Amino acid sequence: MKSIVIFGAGNVATHLFHAFSKARDFRVIQVYNHRQEGLENFNSFCKTTTNINEVEPADVYLIAVKDDVIPAIANSIRYKNALTLHTSGGVSLDVLNDFPNSGVFYPVQTFSQYKPLDFNLIPVCIEVKVEEDISFMEKLAGNISNRIFKINSEQRKSLHLAAVFVNNFVNHLYAEGEEICNKNNIPFEILHPLIEETAAKAIIMRPEDAQTGPAKRNDQAVINSHLSLLDPEQQKIYKLLTQSIRNLHGKEL
Amino acid sequence: MKSIVIFGAGNVATHLFHAFSKARDFRVIQVYNHRQEGLENFNSFCKTTTNINEVEPADVYLIAVKDDVIPAIANSIRYKNALTLHTSGGVSLDVLNDFPNSGVFYPVQTFSQYKPLDFNLIPVCIEVKVEEDISFMEKLAGNISNRIFKINSEQRKSLHLAAVFVNNFVNHLYAEGEEICNKNNIPFEILHPLIEETAAKAIIMRPEDAQTGPAKRNDQAVINSHLSLLDPEQQKIYKLLTQSIRNLHGKEL
Repeated sequence: MKSIVIFGAGNVATHLFHAFSKARDFRVIQVYNHRQEGLENFNSFCKTTTNINEVEPADVYLIAVKDDVIPAIANSIRYKNALTLHTSGGVSLDVLNDFPNSGVFYPVQTFSQYKPLDFNLIPVCIEVKVEEDISFMEKLAGNISNRIFKINSEQRKSLHLAAVFVNNFVNHLYAEGEEICNKNNIPFEILHPLIEETAAKAIIMRPEDAQTGPAKRNDQAVINSHLSLLDPEQQKIYKLLTQSIRNLHGKEL
Repeated sequence: MKSIVIFGAGNVATHLFHAFSKARDFRVIQVYNHRQEGLENFNSFCKTTTNINEVEPADVYLIAVKDDVIPAIANSIRYKNALTLHTSGGVSLDVLNDFPNSGVFYPVQTFSQYKPLDFNLIPVCIEVKVEEDISFMEKLAGNISNRIFKINSEQRKSLHLAAVFVNNFVNHLYAEGEEICNKNNIPFEILHPLIEETAAKAIIMRPEDAQTGPAKRNDQAVINSHLSLLDPEQQKIYKLLTQSIRNLHGKEL
């Protein structure tokens, strides 16, 4: 049984903690957080601390904190012999340069506080500084997920960028859709099944092949009628995405 | 038992046909299509025709064809006494002005040829020209769906526009995400669970409250690093959506 210390007590840390609580070969022995808040969720399962100097030696240090805090945490860790990993899609492996054995353990998912997820289905992208660590890393990831991908730092940067498109930007379009509904006294729930099915379709077929709508068929009457209903900022978004759909589907607007 | 004639043999017509095949109070007696192709799917269940003059009298005429063909179909129908409905989110009720009893029966979903859907869960937005028809219309919709919404033409226009945002535009962002992955030899399937969860979250909480990412937290280092990886068209989309997220979340970029 190998030991893990988790750094952080937020959503990613909490989901990782629960996933490893069922792992065969690994056990979380301690959770560190910079403040007491959040640690109460772990108290009854393992040791916790708010003092970085009290962090115990372990086989794996898993740093699951906000991107901009990772360097500070890494600098404060005195024990350097653990395989030390961060969990961020957007941060370079270089921030862990002080550790002879380091890597990235990036679960590609959006984690919520109260919504349970089956970690087995969550893709985990792994990267190690020292090639000899790869089999240990695969074992670590394989203990909680069936979907392991070796992704280097360059690829991870692009993956994180693609995730911004399909998560952050998509979510903002949902928010724009809700605003349009609210302004017109339309219950947003009418669009819920469409939102789910649009996502489901993108998984069983290529999104490019699933494209429909006035932009794809270049229906200017509908496009102009839609534009007349939008505020200037929404008009910009509508025009740009319509043009981009036209470009992808081979015809100029 | 009331009778229905369906006009069209595409995805919407097919899904409606199957939904009404289990209905208690309604039966599809005929399917019309302008060409033979597609009608073979209905041949063994009811009459079919490619000749609009052979369309039989019925209680309900359900016009489930492409938006731009609806007026031509409506003009060709000789029997004017059916409650005559179209199924489009984007077309005015006025195109059915020749019929004393007309309405809109708009199922808010994206239909695929081979992907079965539980019609009971699909919101159906209804509108009638003559108020006396509303209870019959509610019965019709209630025979195949549990989610009936009375939506007038003005609202339906906005609803259709909101659907363009959460379906067409969202799907295009999936396509952009896939392109970024393909260019960097990253399997797009890594993003599948994120796509599904982003949609699931928008249904259990307000999308505005679910927003995360570099745009929301105004992380200029990540934003600039992302922009350097994109082509000019993608940069425009990235900048505009980032700015729009900043505007919604109260801070200027």
